[in-house]
Amino acid sequence: MSESTLLQLRPIGRLRTPFANLADCPRNTRALDPAPLCRVELEPEFGPGLASLEGFSHLILLYWLDRAGAAELVFTPPFDPQPRGIFASRSPRRPNPVGLAVVAFEGVEDPATLLVRNLDCVDGTPLLDIKPYLRTTDAVPEARMGWLEPKERANRAP
Amino acid sequence: MSESTLLQLRPIGRLRTPFANLADCPRNTRALDPAPLCRVELEPEFGPGLASLEGFSHLILLYWLDRAGAAELVFTPPFDPQPRGIFASRSPRRPNPVGLAVVAFEGVEDPATLLVRNLDCVDGTPLLDIKPYLRTTDAVPEARMGWLEPKERANRAP
Repeated sequence: MSESTLLQLRPIGRLRTPFANLADCPRNTRALDPAPLCRVELEPEFGPGLASLEGFSHLILLYWLDRAGAAELVFTPPFDPQPRGIFASRSPRRPNPVGLAVVAFEGVEDPATLLVRNLDCVDGTPLLDIKPYLRTTDAVPEARMGWLEPKERANRAP
Repeated sequence: MSESTLLQLRPIGRLRTPFANLADCPRNTRALDPAPLCRVELEPEFGPGLASLEGFSHLILLYWLDRAGAAELVFTPPFDPQPRGIFASRSPRRPNPVGLAVVAFEGVEDPATLLVRNLDCVDGTPLLDIKPYLRTTDAVPEARMGWLEPKERANRAP
C-alpha cells in the first residue's frame, strides 16, 4: 500500500448530543458538570456487535468530524497566542478528521442505542467505531500534557 | 450525509515495529516488558504538524489495520469459549478497521520520525493520526472492564 492509497470508512451510526452547532459544543469531553446524557444510535445491522458490552464502565468512540473544515497542520488556538502543530492538539482540523472520546457507558436504551456521557461533538456526528475502554492499556493518570497542561486543567469541570 | 456515504482517509506515515507478522505481535500494548522501541515515520509533508509535541509523555496513535481481514460482528476469541461482540473487544476485525494505541513518547529521531513504546501492530502498519494523550479526558484508572477484566489483568506484563 502506498501513501497515496485512499482508505474507505463508512458510518455505522450517529451520535446524538444536545449540541446543535459547533458553537454549542463544550471545550472538551469533561468541561460540563454534570455531563449531559447522549445517545449512540447504531445502524441496526451492527447491533449483534454489542454483545458482551455490559460490564464495561467506559467506552472509546471514534467518529467522523464532518464539520471540521480543511486540515490545518499549524494553527493558533483561540486561547493561546502561539502557533501549535495539529498533532499536539485535539483540534478537529486534522489530515484525517477522526475524533475520539472516552465516554461513560450508562446502559442500553434499545438493542442498537447506547446511553453515554462525555461527548463534546455536534449532534448527528457520524459514528465510526466503538471500543471497550481498558484501564490496563488506556489509562495513564500520570501522563504529562506539555503545552496543554495549564489550559486543560483550567477547562475541566471543578 | 447518509449511512451509505463512503468517507476517505489517507495514510500519513507508517509504524515501524519489531513484529514482522501478525503471529509475532504481542497480545496487547502492555504485554511486553520492557516494551520495545518503535518508530512513527511521518510523511515529511506532515512534519510541521508535530510542533509543540515536546512535553507530552504519551500519545494516542490511530492506524489502519490492513492485515485484519473481513469484519466479524460476533466472534469467539482464542482465549475464551464464549462468542463476543466486536464492539466489546479490541480485535482488529472491525467494520471500520481503525486501531488505537496509547504509547509512551520517547522523543524525536529526526524532524518526521518519533520514537515510541507500546505498539502491538505489524511492522509497516499505515498511520492515520497522532493525538496528544490528555490525562484530564483520557485517563479513567478506575474503569471496569466487563468480560475482559480477568483476562487483561493476566495478560499485562508483571
